Amino acid sequence: MNFAIAQALVPAAEGYTTVDVGIEADKIASIGSQGPPPTATQTTNAQNQLLLPGFVNAHTHSSEIWQRGTIPPYPLELWIAELHEFSPPDPEQIYLGALATAVETLLSGGTTVVDHLVLIPGKEIETVEAAVRAYQEIGIRAFVGPLIQDQSLETGMPSGDSPTTSGDYYTSTEEILAMMGQVVERFHQPEAGLHVMVAPTGGQLCSDALFAGCMELSDRFDLCRHAHLLETKAQKMLAWEKYGCSAVEHLQRLGYLSERTSLAHCIWLDESDRQILADHRCTVVHNPLSNLRLGSGIAPILHYRQLGVNVAFGCDGAASNDAQDLLEAIKVGSLLHNTTDFDYRNWIHPREAVEMAALGGAKGLNLAGELGTLETGKQADLVLYDLTNLSLLPRTDPIGLLVMGRPSQAVNAAWVNGRQIVANGQVTTIDVDTLRQELFARSQWQVNRQSENVRQLEAPYRRVMGLSE
Amino acid sequence: MNFAIAQALVPAAEGYTTVDVGIEADKIASIGSQGPPPTATQTTNAQNQLLLPGFVNAHTHSSEIWQRGTIPPYPLELWIAELHEFSPPDPEQIYLGALATAVETLLSGGTTVVDHLVLIPGKEIETVEAAVRAYQEIGIRAFVGPLIQDQSLETGMPSGDSPTTSGDYYTSTEEILAMMGQVVERFHQPEAGLHVMVAPTGGQLCSDALFAGCMELSDRFDLCRHAHLLETKAQKMLAWEKYGCSAVEHLQRLGYLSERTSLAHCIWLDESDRQILADHRCTVVHNPLSNLRLGSGIAPILHYRQLGVNVAFGCDGAASNDAQDLLEAIKVGSLLHNTTDFDYRNWIHPREAVEMAALGGAKGLNLAGELGTLETGKQADLVLYDLTNLSLLPRTDPIGLLVMGRPSQAVNAAWVNGRQIVANGQVTTIDVDTLRQELFARSQWQVNRQSENVRQLEAPYRRVMGLSE
Repeated sequence: MNFAIAQALVPAAEGYTTVDVGIEADKIASIGSQGPPPTATQTTNAQNQLLLPGFVNAHTHSSEIWQRGTIPPYPLELWIAELHEFSPPDPEQIYLGALATAVETLLSGGTTVVDHLVLIPGKEIETVEAAVRAYQEIGIRAFVGPLIQDQSLETGMPSGDSPTTSGDYYTSTEEILAMMGQVVERFHQPEAGLHVMVAPTGGQLCSDALFAGCMELSDRFDLCRHAHLLETKAQKMLAWEKYGCSAVEHLQRLGYLSERTSLAHCIWLDESDRQILADHRCTVVHNPLSNLRLGSGIAPILHYRQLGVNVAFGCDGAASNDAQDLLEAIKVGSLLHNTTDFDYRNWIHPREAVEMAALGGAKGLNLAGELGTLETGKQADLVLYDLTNLSLLPRTDPIGLLVMGRPSQAVNAAWVNGRQIVANGQVTTIDVDTLRQELFARSQWQVNRQSENVRQLEAPYRRVMGLSE
Repeated sequence: MNFAIAQALVPAAEGYTTVDVGIEADKIASIGSQGPPPTATQTTNAQNQLLLPGFVNAHTHSSEIWQRGTIPPYPLELWIAELHEFSPPDPEQIYLGALATAVETLLSGGTTVVDHLVLIPGKEIETVEAAVRAYQEIGIRAFVGPLIQDQSLETGMPSGDSPTTSGDYYTSTEEILAMMGQVVERFHQPEAGLHVMVAPTGGQLCSDALFAGCMELSDRFDLCRHAHLLETKAQKMLAWEKYGCSAVEHLQRLGYLSERTSLAHCIWLDESDRQILADHRCTVVHNPLSNLRLGSGIAPILHYRQLGVNVAFGCDGAASNDAQDLLEAIKVGSLLHNTTDFDYRNWIHPREAVEMAALGGAKGLNLAGELGTLETGKQADLVLYDLTNLSLLPRTDPIGLLVMGRPSQAVNAAWVNGRQIVANGQVTTIDVDTLRQELFARSQWQVNRQSENVRQLEAPYRRVMGLSE
């Protein structure tokens, strides 16, 4: 259908301007001040609202929403050991978790979600099917990267002295790649807003053969590539034990780095590693809240920007954040770095943060030509923020308020591919109240957990990381 | 009146328990599992709600809400230069700013606000009157510390070589202290939930005589003491130029440090300075978002806790945050420090963060005997969080969700001194929609500002801080 968004405030080179935007089918057809286009059959009055391109939640694990708030502050290696103690979700929980992740992303300005999807062992295809069903129902643009690995969790920790050996995993590299082939065939439908990506969890748990198989799929079907990269100091130590070089050098040798490769975290990279990411035009996905929560460190985002590396924002899974509020990730992920460089001229300004969240996110998904800016010809993935909301008042600089403030229920409307999926501050495509009731009914408040996995792993972890007994 | 809160979930030594709480007049009269007390004339059903003592927003500047979102990311010294370019607010704006600050504080779990109140030059008493009127109307517990200084802004920056000289200020030390005396006489009514505190802005802009006069008032009227302390590296440099010793040693010699002294920021303290704060049982008010936004640094909060220094949380003024969401300050202010210490055993757990926000806040105001815990005999400053809210689902650990998640509109009810001022998620004592309209009508969206003050101050600032031209 053709419709218009009238009298929206949009950022201009100097300050802001008021425009009327015409949308034809799934694309932005016109932006100007001539009034709504005559072909529009419906017009949204956007007076006192800020119009921005939709943001990208560029890294999350949707099913972790079932464990949010649960795991105490631990470093990644102990945190993940506790996470693995929980029973795998069933496909219906996958579906509900994806819906909840999508709702929080949408209501904080995101129109695209990158789900590094944890798979139910033995029900891999059903897992993907459940998440895809959720994203298609709610209408958010989704990149689903099944989280794959072919080595067991214990091999993911440095030993401190001898090279680690690959542990047995419940399924083979070949079976995993065959499953991925099926996932691509069944679910990869870019024109419907559903992209499959290859997403080995990272070098710490994946063989070179698994990476090679993923690259082959990526090249054959033009799929984006994703992975975790050097989230923790332990992973840096492990890479040297395993490869005799840095994790980045190893990925470079494998050929995994490209302009359609996005890498989550990227904290423990040396300067030469960072330059390699720049040379290969990779995207760094910054997950500031998760990095703080797990004590992983502060990613050198200002330096990446100086090197010309594209940076996007992610919430990461809700067991390590523990929310999917993209505006929170954008705020903390931009302001955090002011403490890492005394020269304020290098700091990230709110408009730059918005550009990272929108265009930076699109670039990381190889869609900079289709998404991320308000330009005619681009896909209509759009968000309207209500500037009369108390959390955005008094009126000052709208983008300053949005990024440096704490907007609460400020998203008034959102469209993906020209389809309106949020109106009057509510998601219109699913029944959020039913979702809320389902999440309530399928969970219970927890007494202090005691993790047996953490108890077992703690001593070797402390030894290898040089922490006192 | 006597009333009851029935079937509320509260934290217990192991996990959670369900209790009925009886309130008589302004105090908690009973907590148990025997059903609501028979004297209760009204009962609030708190099923599926978490009951916690109210938090303290332990440092803010309410009128800065008029500039939130406006000033670009700058270090404090340039930021404050730009802040001073704005016309002083009128008393009605003071009133509205205090209301807006109180609303955001209340709806994020705070029942007490510490307003380090910026005064309108020449209308100092009217400023205090306007803020006090707002706080009494809305019913939040308030500590109002008129922000006083007797030296001009230019003297607040280190010169790099010669001792700074005190600049002329528009009014004298004696006049300021006389004004403070009037403020105490007119407005200090602890039993009504309105406390005046002495609050010289800090050594960088205050004479020793001003501190001495404040101490005299504090001793005579039993007032809490407040100040900024070593927020920036420049302030540390300035103190050495001005005093020939650290700012903390100087405050110690003056006698300003005590168990009723709370000090905002406390970032640039040497270990010996930190020990002085511990020895004098001072409270550190941690304002994490402001510290990130201004690039001031990361306060050594884990070390303070190891030394036994009491720590509370503040939002700081909305021009440097730019919100008054206490739950955001608690989340970032606890998780941030995980990156400063590799040993996760020192990290702040969600229950500890809640204790810092409630009891830590109360201690800093010398009210640990009256506030900050759920105990019979304490004042009924209470908050109920709706655990069926989507942002707190699925059900896991309620306090984990509250602190590490991103609660949105989760405060369902709040009481101060036994008076209910939030019900069904809405402030009941003022008309928030009218407030919203007033804030809208008295402001306008801004085009990119260019600060003349920053332009002038930038070169000397960069020189003294060792930044390239």
